[in-house]
Amino acid sequence: MADKKLVEAITSMEEDFAQWYTDVVKKAELIDYTSVKGCMVIKPAGYAIWELIQKQLDERFKATGVENVYLPMFIPESLLQKEKDHVEGFAPEVAWVTHGGLNPLQERLCVRPTSETLFCDFYKNDIHSYRDLPKVYNQWCSVVRWEKETRPFLRSREFLWQEGHTAHATMEEAEERTIQMLNLYADFCEEVLAMPVIRGRKTEKEKFAGAESTYTIEALMHDGKALQSGTSHNFGDGFAKTFGIQFADRDNRLKYVYQTSWGMTTRLIGAIIMVHGDNSGLVLPPRVAPTQIMIIPIQQKKEGVLDTAYALRDRLGSFRVKVDDSDKSPGWKFSEQEMRGIPIRVEIGPKDMEAGKCVICRRDTGEKLETALDELETKAGEILERMQKEMLERARAHRDSHTHIAQNMEELQDVLDNHPGFVKAMWCANQACEDEIKEKFAATSRCMPFDQEWVGDRCVCCGKPAKKMVYWGRAY
Amino acid sequence: MADKKLVEAITSMEEDFAQWYTDVVKKAELIDYTSVKGCMVIKPAGYAIWELIQKQLDERFKATGVENVYLPMFIPESLLQKEKDHVEGFAPEVAWVTHGGLNPLQERLCVRPTSETLFCDFYKNDIHSYRDLPKVYNQWCSVVRWEKETRPFLRSREFLWQEGHTAHATMEEAEERTIQMLNLYADFCEEVLAMPVIRGRKTEKEKFAGAESTYTIEALMHDGKALQSGTSHNFGDGFAKTFGIQFADRDNRLKYVYQTSWGMTTRLIGAIIMVHGDNSGLVLPPRVAPTQIMIIPIQQKKEGVLDTAYALRDRLGSFRVKVDDSDKSPGWKFSEQEMRGIPIRVEIGPKDMEAGKCVICRRDTGEKLETALDELETKAGEILERMQKEMLERARAHRDSHTHIAQNMEELQDVLDNHPGFVKAMWCANQACEDEIKEKFAATSRCMPFDQEWVGDRCVCCGKPAKKMVYWGRAY
Repeated sequence: MADKKLVEAITSMEEDFAQWYTDVVKKAELIDYTSVKGCMVIKPAGYAIWELIQKQLDERFKATGVENVYLPMFIPESLLQKEKDHVEGFAPEVAWVTHGGLNPLQERLCVRPTSETLFCDFYKNDIHSYRDLPKVYNQWCSVVRWEKETRPFLRSREFLWQEGHTAHATMEEAEERTIQMLNLYADFCEEVLAMPVIRGRKTEKEKFAGAESTYTIEALMHDGKALQSGTSHNFGDGFAKTFGIQFADRDNRLKYVYQTSWGMTTRLIGAIIMVHGDNSGLVLPPRVAPTQIMIIPIQQKKEGVLDTAYALRDRLGSFRVKVDDSDKSPGWKFSEQEMRGIPIRVEIGPKDMEAGKCVICRRDTGEKLETALDELETKAGEILERMQKEMLERARAHRDSHTHIAQNMEELQDVLDNHPGFVKAMWCANQACEDEIKEKFAATSRCMPFDQEWVGDRCVCCGKPAKKMVYWGRAY
Repeated sequence: MADKKLVEAITSMEEDFAQWYTDVVKKAELIDYTSVKGCMVIKPAGYAIWELIQKQLDERFKATGVENVYLPMFIPESLLQKEKDHVEGFAPEVAWVTHGGLNPLQERLCVRPTSETLFCDFYKNDIHSYRDLPKVYNQWCSVVRWEKETRPFLRSREFLWQEGHTAHATMEEAEERTIQMLNLYADFCEEVLAMPVIRGRKTEKEKFAGAESTYTIEALMHDGKALQSGTSHNFGDGFAKTFGIQFADRDNRLKYVYQTSWGMTTRLIGAIIMVHGDNSGLVLPPRVAPTQIMIIPIQQKKEGVLDTAYALRDRLGSFRVKVDDSDKSPGWKFSEQEMRGIPIRVEIGPKDMEAGKCVICRRDTGEKLETALDELETKAGEILERMQKEMLERARAHRDSHTHIAQNMEELQDVLDNHPGFVKAMWCANQACEDEIKEKFAATSRCMPFDQEWVGDRCVCCGKPAKKMVYWGRAY
């Protein structure tokens, strides 16, 4: 059965989830490895997903007043070193440019791992008066972090992202923007990627280098591991004081600005794979599927079949639709369409044509139904909408059924080892307990959720009075 | 007159064109300088132009079957060195990464100056059979060239661009794609940027490092200097042989692929400035104007004025429209709108409201006309369309009136020194003459135009029989 080859080529997720993931990214032709260790090629099928993410995220940004800019990819060493916590967080993992052309540089430049320092250097000259505020800028670019262990989309030495950097007249306004962007990220994940997330705040230990507070959205992958999917940071006036970013306020007094930054990355493509994928490959939520409908002609050499397929494609022009008219067998085409996660397959052959019908097959459930040709457009629209909704519901049900409560260290270990997923447990807010949990169980605090539904009164680790409910988990 | 300050702040173009250019990029808030020498910040007003260029160019690409991808920004030294001509062309001007984190790298990586070598390395593994061809890939990214002299948009150490890289089964198909993309570029410049270009082929001396032939579009700036605005290269099977990119053809024989590459950059923004700008600042063709219409309320504190302005904005929703409701004076707002090159200004005050009218002012001609409020949408659409068309016509007339013919070296020198612009002159196709012209007059062969309208029979330099008509010029 040549038709089964493509599917058999991937490991089942129950057998080896990591290998399943690697197989899917390769067989769905999302990426390729390169001669540059830790860097990947994002192939057309992968990049088209990123383009859809970019477009929809960018529209949401702009609706809140965000303006796009572009800053240099290089940061002079002295600039990176200005903010103490920040440089400690990033210096060990940056790539250094030491030569330009044939000459050594007077000062090393790092390839940006993130651009807080550059934005500060820019804002220092660009902001003078309260009239110049707020600045709500964003850039789409690539960044570099010299990771030792890399995995496609999840952790690579170079990745694509957007980084928003804002400056405000007051702390309240900065905090409001920080939360606004986190909620925008969460809504985007749920509405577009069909991926439910927990919204919360990072502990002191886990917050961003240089931030006063870091907010995060955390998603649960199919294997029960957590994935940090977007973060939003409030810097207070810390960076502004270090870099000297001041403005003349309405009262004519010079004040420091308050800043935020927030980012999402190509890691989201890894999240889509691990939340929705199955043993036939990728499953794409319709809103980020580069091809939403693949029309596969049956017995395409028979007269009129291809023409009918093309006519259906034209009739479905309000969707992202293609005809697979290659000379492969229909079975092979089915496997390919499934592997690539295309939401809907339409099968059309001579018998269907005679009956004025076609077969629709839904990627996520495998459900098949016959449809009259003249109802195809309506039906396809309905199915795509239902699929988007049900994929979110299924992911939420999976997340909820893989979220447990632990009251003490024994329960915590039991859940982590035997029921992979999120663990809700109370915490005394002391970093020693967080360290102990990380050391003993290789689990981290994912966030202190906004929704502080207390599941006990005592710290899961030390038993002292609890201050916060925390989501714990093993994470990518 | 505070209202005039903004305009007075720029040097007149007749007085000092280079300073005028620098003033415009700064005062129109397109860029800012940075702590990284030779690298710039592209500010919102500049980046929004790039986004409009990207969007419209990308749509045209996709209509010809182009797919977007993303390749790493780093190239291992050994990979860059594989193709002899290519490395000689680029090695002197690349930035080298020598350390990752705290450790020296085993092999230096350069930051891509262009990605031919990476695409070859990728295609080598990705192409096996004639079924895998053609590959018509493109990426939007930034590249780095360690230039000594830099100018905003025209020549900077890092710039944004797109680079298309294709692979084909035959030389004919590669040549066809090379020319197709050059024509696409030329049409884009004319239809979107209102900028006429000469389409032609580069001489051997001026062609791209490693290419078999390079095609170019050359535009003429307001000061009579030429600007290379886009190039398209045919590599034949040269790179394929060096990198071993082979495919099994229909006849089962292993053959080398034929490759092309083509690119346009943020330099186009510099071209827009220098083709259309005037002594009041930037003048944007409507199709790349981030704001097409600026509504400026007069006596905005009077009752109903701002509300009317907002209502007009909503009615003009099919355009990119804004209201300037800041607390600056109308005169200052006029100057700002002019400096930023916004195509149409709509003035609306209490008297206009009473009369059911408003004033439209066209940026390129300064022409003012009164319009009934309920005809504004139609009128604005007509004016934008006419402006787009007339800006192209004016630029073409300027180009044509600044294009001269030279029959010998005396005439060539006279034209270059006293009538800056393109010079059409015959050439024997011998590089010695090209070298001599460059050395004596600092002018280069811009291209051998497709349209080979001979202007004589003898080489402008040596007087021997001519083989080609060439456009010569001093260039950016």
